[in-house]
Amino acid sequence: MAGGVSEPERLARAALTRIVEPGDEHGGRWLRELGPVELFRRLTSHPYVEGSLPGASERRIEGMRGRAAVVTPERDLAAVDAVGGRFVVPGDPEWPSQLDDLGDARPVGLWVRGHADLRRWALRSVAVVGARACTPYGAHVAATLASGLAERGWVVVSGAAFGVDGAAHRGALAVGGATVAVLACGVDVAYPRGHAGLIGRIAQQGLLVGELPPGSHPTPSRFVLRNRVIAALTRGTVVIEAEYRSGSLVTARCARRLGRYTMGVPGPVTSGLSAGVHELLRGEAVLVTDAAEVAELVGDIGDLAPARRGPVLPRDLLDPVSKRVLEALPARGTAVTGPDVARGAGTGVDEAVGRLYELHSLGFVERRGDGWELTKWAIHRPNARRGGT
Amino acid sequence: MAGGVSEPERLARAALTRIVEPGDEHGGRWLRELGPVELFRRLTSHPYVEGSLPGASERRIEGMRGRAAVVTPERDLAAVDAVGGRFVVPGDPEWPSQLDDLGDARPVGLWVRGHADLRRWALRSVAVVGARACTPYGAHVAATLASGLAERGWVVVSGAAFGVDGAAHRGALAVGGATVAVLACGVDVAYPRGHAGLIGRIAQQGLLVGELPPGSHPTPSRFVLRNRVIAALTRGTVVIEAEYRSGSLVTARCARRLGRYTMGVPGPVTSGLSAGVHELLRGEAVLVTDAAEVAELVGDIGDLAPARRGPVLPRDLLDPVSKRVLEALPARGTAVTGPDVARGAGTGVDEAVGRLYELHSLGFVERRGDGWELTKWAIHRPNARRGGT
Repeated sequence: MAGGVSEPERLARAALTRIVEPGDEHGGRWLRELGPVELFRRLTSHPYVEGSLPGASERRIEGMRGRAAVVTPERDLAAVDAVGGRFVVPGDPEWPSQLDDLGDARPVGLWVRGHADLRRWALRSVAVVGARACTPYGAHVAATLASGLAERGWVVVSGAAFGVDGAAHRGALAVGGATVAVLACGVDVAYPRGHAGLIGRIAQQGLLVGELPPGSHPTPSRFVLRNRVIAALTRGTVVIEAEYRSGSLVTARCARRLGRYTMGVPGPVTSGLSAGVHELLRGEAVLVTDAAEVAELVGDIGDLAPARRGPVLPRDLLDPVSKRVLEALPARGTAVTGPDVARGAGTGVDEAVGRLYELHSLGFVERRGDGWELTKWAIHRPNARRGGT
Repeated sequence: MAGGVSEPERLARAALTRIVEPGDEHGGRWLRELGPVELFRRLTSHPYVEGSLPGASERRIEGMRGRAAVVTPERDLAAVDAVGGRFVVPGDPEWPSQLDDLGDARPVGLWVRGHADLRRWALRSVAVVGARACTPYGAHVAATLASGLAERGWVVVSGAAFGVDGAAHRGALAVGGATVAVLACGVDVAYPRGHAGLIGRIAQQGLLVGELPPGSHPTPSRFVLRNRVIAALTRGTVVIEAEYRSGSLVTARCARRLGRYTMGVPGPVTSGLSAGVHELLRGEAVLVTDAAEVAELVGDIGDLAPARRGPVLPRDLLDPVSKRVLEALPARGTAVTGPDVARGAGTGVDEAVGRLYELHSLGFVERRGDGWELTKWAIHRPNARRGGT
């Protein structure tokens, strides 16, 4: 998991997630110019070397230095480890490099919980976001859309909030699909509390992701800044029900700026909860009415995610568990269920499904109905399939 | 009313509306190449001069000659006169020249009932069309949109059908606004019969328009071909509720081809009646949610309808009744109601409102709330206002 990232660097980044607020432009610039270890050194040097952290106000630097003096990154890493999580930083194989599009607003690192590989899932993911106080229509559309996307092998990313977010996560989970909740708090904090059960299920079957270290609580600005991570992580953002000036529109506009697809599901023009979506659709967003239309847009042939990141991973570079899961699929292209695959591979069901979604994003497997099967590509290169071991 | 059109030409065109079906491409070409009088002569010559009507099948020509042998255009002109109507042809001052965009599919002539000037109304008109079997949502949106357009001085054009069409006409009438029904039958035929009352009201307060001579009944193909007249007559078409492959989509696509604005009002994606509209909106149509958005699009400043047709009419070229109506408006820019204007001008209320809409299209007056007032332009040129008489 360590990749080319040194331990001091990882420790420094872990510490910085407690010192620098998400999206802080000074922090991002210092991090780029100085690197995490040197930045952390300057934040903790005694006395402070005047001018060593240029640009920010004295008060702001004082605040950061105050927090830097008391951080215990080892304890945060242990805390995330205790809940089965990890801390992923730029340079790690799991780091979703599309976040680099955020420039100096790129997260310092991501705290992650769940079995799947964040980078591979993100390559084939769509954000489904919308109003917290959504109507039954919005909840229905979010759940149906998310189920349809999951059935087509897409990972549904949202923010775990009430309303549309929750419906989207549940829709994906309901069909045994993959879902990622990007939190505005620590990945060990269930917020909103009413979604503790859902968030727990996502940690088991999907992924929880956040910029903030264990135990952190959300604030209004953290919610807004969290949205840029949702937008950057995914191939596109679908907005379902949003009033004027809502947070979901922030996500959509951020997606647009980052060159991601921006989509909206219309609703009755008599509903204030669709007004923000319609405003978006009168701009540059694409109107979508179902999962097929979303998948068609974000997954256009010839622009599949793995292709953008270089050649598809050769099988012999798959990790042993993924390889076992792949080998548990029948060679003749018959679809089998997640539990069948788990039995064949000797893994848990959640583990197997997580790996299947990864393999899907790499072009090895695809969904058919409730099951999974090898892609034509995978069937016609049996040597590659078993090669290397 | 006669303009530069000769009586034989008008008679020939009246006859041809009974011989050539709306949109018939052979008829349109012959009309362009031969003119109405010569075309009628060839259709009625005995014996038929072989090859004198090239292109169409023998059977088709036989059918037309059969109808030509029995037409009595004088009787049709008398019949439309008896219901207070008229027959308007290319070359007449009232001919809406934007219909020329239809090329050889241009109507031979238009049978018209109502007080207003069709050409001037058409210059500032928007089509509002949609499903016959619309939902309460569709009917509500159509009525609200039409009222809002009428209040902004726009003429609402539709097809007098059940559902969205009827709701649109009623919405315009409800605020004392202007509305045009383009019929697929004679302007003395109330179709559908359930809309006899509505169609009668439109004849009084608005305009009935059709390509077919008095007494003609609609057929499926006449409905479809009627839609091209709605599209061509107006500055843009708004579709409210339409299933896949519905007639309203024909109107919208025709509008698009003619370079008119094409708009759609979204609805719930769970409603099959919005599916056609959403399909349109995923193409090149613009999503609109209210009358303000429609008016903004079709009436963008700098492209006002009269400007497209040359300079605004000088006041001394207004006909005497319009001039009286204009003079019944107070010079200080105070809004007065239609009945007030009628009293001042010594006309009926419907007549006055019809003239006010004409004057509106010419830039002399504008609506404010329930009333009418002179435009700044009209106030600041008082000499022009009273000039010429």
